[in-house]
Amino acid sequence: MNAYTPPLARLIEQLQKLPGVGPKTAQRLALYLIKRPEDEVQAFAQALLDAKRQVGLCKTCFHLSAEPICSICRNPSRDRATICVVADPRDVIALEKMREYSGLYHVLGGVISPMDGIGPDQLQIQPLVRRASQAEIQEVILAISPSVEGETTTLYIGQLLRPFVKVTQIAFGLPMGGDLEYADEVTLARALEGRRELL
Amino acid sequence: MNAYTPPLARLIEQLQKLPGVGPKTAQRLALYLIKRPEDEVQAFAQALLDAKRQVGLCKTCFHLSAEPICSICRNPSRDRATICVVADPRDVIALEKMREYSGLYHVLGGVISPMDGIGPDQLQIQPLVRRASQAEIQEVILAISPSVEGETTTLYIGQLLRPFVKVTQIAFGLPMGGDLEYADEVTLARALEGRRELL
Repeated sequence: MNAYTPPLARLIEQLQKLPGVGPKTAQRLALYLIKRPEDEVQAFAQALLDAKRQVGLCKTCFHLSAEPICSICRNPSRDRATICVVADPRDVIALEKMREYSGLYHVLGGVISPMDGIGPDQLQIQPLVRRASQAEIQEVILAISPSVEGETTTLYIGQLLRPFVKVTQIAFGLPMGGDLEYADEVTLARALEGRRELL
Repeated sequence: MNAYTPPLARLIEQLQKLPGVGPKTAQRLALYLIKRPEDEVQAFAQALLDAKRQVGLCKTCFHLSAEPICSICRNPSRDRATICVVADPRDVIALEKMREYSGLYHVLGGVISPMDGIGPDQLQIQPLVRRASQAEIQEVILAISPSVEGETTTLYIGQLLRPFVKVTQIAFGLPMGGDLEYADEVTLARALEGRRELL
């Protein structure tokens, strides 16, 4: 039930499908949008269609890309001996922001989660095994969030790859600036377990 | 700075222009959108363009409408002797939801706010005066939010219309279910001032 004129009601309905957008927000966004100049709205609609039509997955690392091979995989100045394995394209962006890592990536497209019907075959694990078995690869770094599903995925991939390549996992522990007093037990246990000799 | 492939970066940029949408939300929405089926994304883009191109203002009451005259003004079963004056199309929707009011509306398009450069000429006040001076109009109800600007607008319109039509204002006071203890002083003063004899 919506007393707005049909074209506006349809836009509100579409906006409401977005994650985290309820009826009030959808209404506010729709009224905002129809007040914008027509060329701005057109640019928005075009960006939407272009992104949907042009963006696919890199054939090598499965990161989001408008080209068959993504710009990271094509970059000749990157270290081609190291692959960092992440669950999601957002993780690639987060790691790239850091500007410390110069190797390649491999995006799994999720984590193993039997409850959601996601097994190893739904993820890009077989292509990772093929990539990791190439002679030039020296290290595979597993950078998957430490949830139950994430840990399962890390262990599973570790077992598959360990026979033929060095496999490491990123460190878990107290976050920088974090307060020991307020850290949860699991994080504290991981921080203790991952202790290193002070140099 | 955005490490996403250009078509996706452009969509994120467009989404970030929306009110209340920051970089993280824009990223989340964009990744959600490019995962939807193409026909769904197309329906969204089409709804956006249709709403922008088709929705204008009703020539009579200035409510949002895809037709020259809106469905409320065209509805023969509505009471044509009463006009309810509101600031914004959203107020019409709020009042219509109530299902108690069967008269017509008049949308001002804002309130008088010299600080924002909005004077009476930027609002649909002259058309309201013309409508209200028609013989068939018996009452004009002012339903403008009681902010400083809203009250100014109410007083201004009241003075213009009172010579030739009955002008009323909606009641202000304690909201239903509201707690007297937590009401602000101005609301309490208005509630006291608007007291009525118990029948």
